[in-house]
Amino acid sequence: MNDVIFGKNSVLEALIAGNREINKILISKNIHSDNKLNKIKDLAKEKGIIFQFVGKEKFQPYEEFNHQGIIAQISPIEYKDLDEFLEEKKEGYSSLVILDGIEDSHNLGAIIRTCVCAGVSGIVIPSRRNVQVNATVEKTSAGAINHIPIIKVNSLVNAVQKLKNSDWWVVAADANAKDNYYDVNYTDMNFAIIMGAEHAGVSKSLLKLSDFVVKIPMLKDFNSLNVSNALSAIIFETVRQKLTNKK
Amino acid sequence: MNDVIFGKNSVLEALIAGNREINKILISKNIHSDNKLNKIKDLAKEKGIIFQFVGKEKFQPYEEFNHQGIIAQISPIEYKDLDEFLEEKKEGYSSLVILDGIEDSHNLGAIIRTCVCAGVSGIVIPSRRNVQVNATVEKTSAGAINHIPIIKVNSLVNAVQKLKNSDWWVVAADANAKDNYYDVNYTDMNFAIIMGAEHAGVSKSLLKLSDFVVKIPMLKDFNSLNVSNALSAIIFETVRQKLTNKK
Repeated sequence: MNDVIFGKNSVLEALIAGNREINKILISKNIHSDNKLNKIKDLAKEKGIIFQFVGKEKFQPYEEFNHQGIIAQISPIEYKDLDEFLEEKKEGYSSLVILDGIEDSHNLGAIIRTCVCAGVSGIVIPSRRNVQVNATVEKTSAGAINHIPIIKVNSLVNAVQKLKNSDWWVVAADANAKDNYYDVNYTDMNFAIIMGAEHAGVSKSLLKLSDFVVKIPMLKDFNSLNVSNALSAIIFETVRQKLTNKK
Repeated sequence: MNDVIFGKNSVLEALIAGNREINKILISKNIHSDNKLNKIKDLAKEKGIIFQFVGKEKFQPYEEFNHQGIIAQISPIEYKDLDEFLEEKKEGYSSLVILDGIEDSHNLGAIIRTCVCAGVSGIVIPSRRNVQVNATVEKTSAGAINHIPIIKVNSLVNAVQKLKNSDWWVVAADANAKDNYYDVNYTDMNFAIIMGAEHAGVSKSLLKLSDFVVKIPMLKDFNSLNVSNALSAIIFETVRQKLTNKK
């Protein structure tokens, strides 16, 4: 079900971003008109995208999703290639988030939202052993998926090696690290932050390659932060440093 | 379904914390033994809690939950009273998180985890217009629910007023604020952070009462952080300030 997105926000965001080919929008006859729906209809008209009002039986296959009576049939997401990303990289410092074995669609969706809000330049996922971008991810990302390139690589080790050779610094998050995430100065480098699987953490081969290994200090003996929340703490510290120009 | 918790982590945490009366633990005959399961059995024996190995049909009513073949029947969570919380408050500075209209169980669960990791002293929820602690919240909290008091109040406005009268400072998160969340010095006061509903934000009456209104600066024109991720950014900034003793 990679070819359908659900809900007003997601459909509206996809229309605004305009980087996904939308084949058709289906709107339930039963939903009430509101600002968002009107915007969707206006944009669809403007872009020549067909929208149809349909009975609720058309939504039956998508019952498990919170579709709010609106879905759009779209072309699948286009993953980016790491080489392509590096070639297109703009002047100045960029940032990446590398996901090593994230299994939960909701977590990936939340991570994408956080990365877009924090101005991250791209998200790297491995082609195996990590959740891929599916309908739940799109929905949970609240449209953010349209605002950031998702870079798919066959080997995270090779990708990290390549980044290191291209003047990037690599920071891995690990609960057993000595340094805290705010001990690193993120203001004067290209950096990539590696977040590990919900249970296993960042794999050893990647920890070994990383320039910094950092933890989030816990004020209680309960070390079990949700991965998207852990990333949020780290990534907004990089934003704070950038905007205040101090570590 | 307030009286059942699901999954190895949640059951184990409830056993360790010991603050919830566990009536019985049901374990599926089909699950494999592992470290966590052994710990659960040992602790249950030690505490004289009955555990039974049962066929998978016993789990049918809980199919929609990710129960991993283990559930515990427990007494419902005991909410705390704000006066009681304030009376029991320890010397030194404490912190609270106030939730104003959070609707999503997964978000509440993630918020509880983050608050425990960051050493927050309690979470305040209103008795209406906010998700209550249910089985999904317990599961998503990964057992964190047993490590932090949940304070239920009839009126958030009265609660905030009471906190202000008791030497607490109140910080509300709002996307339209002028100040950034890291502009506030959290190191030398009791503080309560108010997070608003996923769409509507913090209600006006509470914004008006707050001592500080802060935003999370966005580096991209996409202002839609998940509420638990927004809280994580703010709350770990308070941890950073505490541990480094600098704003």
